[in-house]
Amino acid sequence: MATEQLRIPKATAKRLPLYYRFLQNLYQSGKLRVSSAELSEAVKVDSATIRRDFSYFGALGKKGYGYNVQYLLNFFRKTLDQDALTKVALIGVGNLGTALLRYNFTKNNNTKICYAFDTNESKIGTQISDVTVYSLDQLEEILNKEEIQVVILTVPAQAAQSVTDRLVKTRVKGILNFTPARLNVPSSINVHHIDLAVELQSFVYFIKNYSNESEDTEEVEENEKTRI
Amino acid sequence: MATEQLRIPKATAKRLPLYYRFLQNLYQSGKLRVSSAELSEAVKVDSATIRRDFSYFGALGKKGYGYNVQYLLNFFRKTLDQDALTKVALIGVGNLGTALLRYNFTKNNNTKICYAFDTNESKIGTQISDVTVYSLDQLEEILNKEEIQVVILTVPAQAAQSVTDRLVKTRVKGILNFTPARLNVPSSINVHHIDLAVELQSFVYFIKNYSNESEDTEEVEENEKTRI
Repeated sequence: MATEQLRIPKATAKRLPLYYRFLQNLYQSGKLRVSSAELSEAVKVDSATIRRDFSYFGALGKKGYGYNVQYLLNFFRKTLDQDALTKVALIGVGNLGTALLRYNFTKNNNTKICYAFDTNESKIGTQISDVTVYSLDQLEEILNKEEIQVVILTVPAQAAQSVTDRLVKTRVKGILNFTPARLNVPSSINVHHIDLAVELQSFVYFIKNYSNESEDTEEVEENEKTRI
Repeated sequence: MATEQLRIPKATAKRLPLYYRFLQNLYQSGKLRVSSAELSEAVKVDSATIRRDFSYFGALGKKGYGYNVQYLLNFFRKTLDQDALTKVALIGVGNLGTALLRYNFTKNNNTKICYAFDTNESKIGTQISDVTVYSLDQLEEILNKEEIQVVILTVPAQAAQSVTDRLVKTRVKGILNFTPARLNVPSSINVHHIDLAVELQSFVYFIKNYSNESEDTEEVEENEKTRI
């Protein structure tokens, strides 16, 4: 049961990297076990959800003991496919694009931005953190040749849909959209939107109305409620 | 009931700006009503959650009709306190900080980055999108004088905790943390972590394992499950 690779729910799958990263830190600091309460505090996911997630991994916490850090790490490493490097392309080398290129993604995982694209002649042919910036004219050619499945979109909002329309005709299956634009795509393509304005507004609203309360408690309550 | 301002759950509160923004677009394009299925598709929140959220707003959708867009917009505008400008400070004017300063946050809401801080002498005193960059030495002085409650943290990871330790002594109640560092703060301060490496890894894992499936369907299933 514990070694069998089960198909885990998508909502759980999305939390895997978060758990993985935190457990790596724990392991490096010499901790052998961790309670769901500690994990909850650290990764900001309520402990009921953590316990349910972990049950899919065949990891059953023991009362007064918690979870075995090494076991979880081995499971996550295998599941997240840490040995296979996933090549990602980034489109739009402005400030945000440059920040992402300089961000050391590979420190914690095997996902790497390997190709960058821009329309600015002064940027084309330059390198940022070892990644060459190509002309947007070469987009389809390179994506298809390298079989890129995931792209990060950091172009100006007004260019987002036209670039997306081009991506639809490649092998790309996923777009991590950092632009404020909402993208129209066929159902074969998944878009994950990181909308910074919404993140900021939402957080400000939260602070103005719910400060001096932990961000977690009510999530738990809400979960309890939905379980009834 | 509909006009009464109810205290809504935090998890719902966090989704408000997302709904608000999408409904603004709908309203501008002349749409008078919207179904929870349409909303679900657009904002990527499952429709069961949308219906539950909206019930807190006193907005009850009618079968075959949907929700009244104007009513929802009025409610959101009032709730999100669109008339009161919230001033936010940004710490760390690197690529990501500059990208956030250039991002037109005020287009859709009344949250504005008004102060920026950095340690780089060549940046101090310059302006980016009308925001002056101050020396980090002036951090406490300006935050306290301007009664800033929310800051955006875009400093290098190794500086994140030391800057946070200084913020703890100001009136700041919320930190939007874009660094990879996990911050230690007292319970009086809320941290919202936007961890770009985790976002990317999680999305790549999702695409590799669940592509050609909609991102929504299983969330709904999981919600149904927890309700049993």
